[in-house]
Amino acid sequence: MIDTHPFAGVYAPVMTPFAADLTPDMSRLTDHCRWLRDHGCGVVLFGTTGEGNSLAVEEKIDVLNALAETELDRRSILIGAGACAFPDAVRVSGHASALGYGGVLMLPPFYYKDVNDEGLFRAFSEVIERVGDPKLRVYLYHIPPVALVPISLGLIERLIDAYPTVVVGLKDSSGDGANICAVLDAFPGFGVFVGSETGLLDTLRRGGAGCISATVNIDPQPIRRLFDHWRTPEADSMHTAVSSFRGTMRQFPLIPALKAVIARYADDPAWQRLRPPLVELTDPERAALFAKLDARGFSMPGLRKT
Amino acid sequence: MIDTHPFAGVYAPVMTPFAADLTPDMSRLTDHCRWLRDHGCGVVLFGTTGEGNSLAVEEKIDVLNALAETELDRRSILIGAGACAFPDAVRVSGHASALGYGGVLMLPPFYYKDVNDEGLFRAFSEVIERVGDPKLRVYLYHIPPVALVPISLGLIERLIDAYPTVVVGLKDSSGDGANICAVLDAFPGFGVFVGSETGLLDTLRRGGAGCISATVNIDPQPIRRLFDHWRTPEADSMHTAVSSFRGTMRQFPLIPALKAVIARYADDPAWQRLRPPLVELTDPERAALFAKLDARGFSMPGLRKT
Repeated sequence: MIDTHPFAGVYAPVMTPFAADLTPDMSRLTDHCRWLRDHGCGVVLFGTTGEGNSLAVEEKIDVLNALAETELDRRSILIGAGACAFPDAVRVSGHASALGYGGVLMLPPFYYKDVNDEGLFRAFSEVIERVGDPKLRVYLYHIPPVALVPISLGLIERLIDAYPTVVVGLKDSSGDGANICAVLDAFPGFGVFVGSETGLLDTLRRGGAGCISATVNIDPQPIRRLFDHWRTPEADSMHTAVSSFRGTMRQFPLIPALKAVIARYADDPAWQRLRPPLVELTDPERAALFAKLDARGFSMPGLRKT
Repeated sequence: MIDTHPFAGVYAPVMTPFAADLTPDMSRLTDHCRWLRDHGCGVVLFGTTGEGNSLAVEEKIDVLNALAETELDRRSILIGAGACAFPDAVRVSGHASALGYGGVLMLPPFYYKDVNDEGLFRAFSEVIERVGDPKLRVYLYHIPPVALVPISLGLIERLIDAYPTVVVGLKDSSGDGANICAVLDAFPGFGVFVGSETGLLDTLRRGGAGCISATVNIDPQPIRRLFDHWRTPEADSMHTAVSSFRGTMRQFPLIPALKAVIARYADDPAWQRLRPPLVELTDPERAALFAKLDARGFSMPGLRKT
């Protein structure tokens, strides 16, 4: 019933670098996508970590167009496309699919809370029907800690039934191991990504597709290694190592911390910029973070200033 | 320090009627604005009740343009303009101000949760600075039950200090009487609206500007009467009556219930349409609601099919 999902592996919800006027900086963005690719990882544009909801639709269209001019393989790039207003989701999803991007990661409309599954079904359905492109591939985005609007098993089932070749997977950023297990058990063959490398090994052991995790932006290789070797005896120690690193990063506001790390290792302070309402780390936070990274002997091989 | 705020009275966050293809229906919208005006009430476009966040920016621009072609007094209309992405808030606020609308009601960016006041200050500041129109008047929109991103007293103070002629008021939909009292006490002269007529009398007694309430869409006259007579001995019984009616409506999903009521009393089923993720009342809900309205002898004088 479920069509083969086109994505598997380790993905970074890629950070969006900004110019001084807070417009997306295509040169730094493209270089970071290349660095991630060269370290075995794919990218998701406009995710939570990429400040996707802080970008206007027209800005997203511009980024999609600009990235399509590069040599990066669009079929391997997933595009964050969910929005509160369905015409916005239709516009970004339709444009991404038309340009040959491999799929979209779709948040539910997230302004109204306590909405029912019928309303959410209609919201996704409205987008899929209006895009009307058989090439569209949708990964549902379940991130209740931020969106506050969960995607239930019943909703997944209805969407797979209605759009078996379009709704092909889900990203689970609930942090709830029981939920991702339930999804994997209920929908064999569904392309399920966990939202943190801490859950990657368990997810792969249960038939999941991989992880899409903020930390991949700075720590791609060890996480990719775990993906490649999850069946080996070394997998558990690899899991422990990447989880420990994630734990260090989670001691700081994660999105600003990731940008601070790239800024440091690329020797490029411009990378620290965020769009409001996010703010950069304070000086003491930055010093504490860097001390922890130094204590770990952390590095970002091959990263350089754009 | 605070400039005179331009709004006071009773306002409906006006429902947005939709055509069969879910585009905003300007004819019904304009007629409903007129009906509210003729019953003593102003309107806020693109509020929570008006499904404002379910509309794309271009759709909002089209509505602003179309309404500007009518005889309705733009200076008395407030425009919902907050967004997750500041360029969207800039576009709607700037266009509304340029067209002569009296002010904007501004949500904080509401995707990221647990953001700090520095980030929210920058978010509002970015919009105000980029609009760059001295005519702009901003009412902050504090609605933690839905947005989950509150507007603190400290943030209000910073914004008033930085933009004393622009940031002129606040709508408090927290449902927390202590919060609105604290705002009224801390910022005399600030244009404070309560989000429900149940809080109108208390708000006026403490120097507030009025209310902006969903229920005004169907019950404008009694609420306006309370506003006009809040200093009289009859005010408490008026308060009890409008609060009781509000209590009846709150037994149902409020936005669909309000649309069902207009559809019934205008004899116009098209009014029931909502954008996903909201869904219309079920038949049993509708029957139960109408029975309660009949028991109250409720009517909507002068309402008719567009």
